[in-house]
Amino acid sequence: MNLAVIGVGLIGGSFALALKQAQAVRHIVGVGRNAANLKAALERGIIDATAPDAAAAARSADLVLVAAPVGQYPAIFSALKDCKAVITDGGSTKRDVIAAARNALGNAIARFVPAHPIAGGEKSGAGAASAELFRGRRVVVTPLEENPASVVAVVEQAWKKCGARVSRMSAEQHDAVLATVSHLPHLLAFALVHEVARRENSAELFSFAAGGFRDFTRIASSHPEMWRDICAANRDRLLDEVRRFSAKLDQMKALLERPDELEKLFAEAREARNKWIQSS
Amino acid sequence: MNLAVIGVGLIGGSFALALKQAQAVRHIVGVGRNAANLKAALERGIIDATAPDAAAAARSADLVLVAAPVGQYPAIFSALKDCKAVITDGGSTKRDVIAAARNALGNAIARFVPAHPIAGGEKSGAGAASAELFRGRRVVVTPLEENPASVVAVVEQAWKKCGARVSRMSAEQHDAVLATVSHLPHLLAFALVHEVARRENSAELFSFAAGGFRDFTRIASSHPEMWRDICAANRDRLLDEVRRFSAKLDQMKALLERPDELEKLFAEAREARNKWIQSS
Repeated sequence: MNLAVIGVGLIGGSFALALKQAQAVRHIVGVGRNAANLKAALERGIIDATAPDAAAAARSADLVLVAAPVGQYPAIFSALKDCKAVITDGGSTKRDVIAAARNALGNAIARFVPAHPIAGGEKSGAGAASAELFRGRRVVVTPLEENPASVVAVVEQAWKKCGARVSRMSAEQHDAVLATVSHLPHLLAFALVHEVARRENSAELFSFAAGGFRDFTRIASSHPEMWRDICAANRDRLLDEVRRFSAKLDQMKALLERPDELEKLFAEAREARNKWIQSS
Repeated sequence: MNLAVIGVGLIGGSFALALKQAQAVRHIVGVGRNAANLKAALERGIIDATAPDAAAAARSADLVLVAAPVGQYPAIFSALKDCKAVITDGGSTKRDVIAAARNALGNAIARFVPAHPIAGGEKSGAGAASAELFRGRRVVVTPLEENPASVVAVVEQAWKKCGARVSRMSAEQHDAVLATVSHLPHLLAFALVHEVARRENSAELFSFAAGGFRDFTRIASSHPEMWRDICAANRDRLLDEVRRFSAKLDQMKALLERPDELEKLFAEAREARNKWIQSS
């Protein structure tokens, strides 16, 4: 199998490395906006060659992974319209990706199987890529009604060869679930760090911040452009989550007057989290 | 030096272990509500003996560390009124601790030097104690006007022997700083986990939560009683922080309509956090 990776960052680079390790690919072509990053990907053996654009990279590919920031997807899908490859992606939102794909791909939409690997980290770029990134992690595939079963199978097999656990759901369900457990926490972490950074005494505040703050805000070191695109794409769901969380904060304010009920909420949260950690 | 530790949990146990490792103590007596925990502390060699109550433990002590949940401080300080030892504590809030100490200790307040080691973790109990817990970490000491310099020196020396970096500030300043960088993030983490846990589809939501959610919510596995006491003690400051964060969320909602400004905020937050991480 020949692979083309459009966007050789953490996700694209790790997909390439994992499929190489699984001996599932013969040749990998990479495309990207950042020449230094592509050079690093070549040097690390993540990709075997580069191409000037997505159309050229896809020409001899059997499988194309689109793993660029979602804001670039419309142009990339337009460039992939005439290729013969099966296409999947690594975008963190799915409704907008599917809309962009339908708009640009025309009948070729049948060859596009949307996917979202729920893995990553605050590090980005080919230098952070790892063959192990997806091992044991979930990849959500949101097949389209136009996808033949054989095409879905190609994409699911590729992700499974990366060591991932593949789940299917609708794009709507995916975007709602991720808004709660991923997009909202990212927004909260960015917001807290920004709030601390803009205070007059921010140097003092940071100097007394400890491990709890460090872990709580780890995701505030994530890629700003990527998260702008995610927030824009999933705005309705995320707005709904922010509203619900604001209401929760009003409840927390009220509970600050009722310590025993507050302790009960803390204990329930701890129990739920510990149960989740133990089962995951 | 003979040491008495009232509350042999993560903080009290680690203080004992660190001073033993520094060969700064001769004999350590521990007191606690939980017999199994005290037994574990004896077995691990954290303490050399137990006493039935704080008064008995302090009788032959040169230094007493109060490291119980802050809600128990009034009774503990009453029991320490007539001892001759220098007293410090490990409470996460300082204005309420000082008020309780003034109320219970009378003239003995001169021997009490409040302290807060900014170290810890979501694990609790003697089993989690470590001689290294305070190494390189900050301990905030908030001396009282009644404290002779020699008494402050005893307490600061003890914390320094644990490997800590000692800072002085007022209790008011301490409680304001900690509300921002510690108490608010804890409240947000507890709130998010509780919100997810109470949803109808909570099992599905947790099953698609990944590393970002895990780290963001690590502090929601913290000790509920301890955090009830912290929130109750620092309620005014924490309410102020929750109000400011709610206003920040309103700003985030507005920015969801303006992706470029949102990206700028994300980039500023990432830069501030990365700068902090690199300098700490």
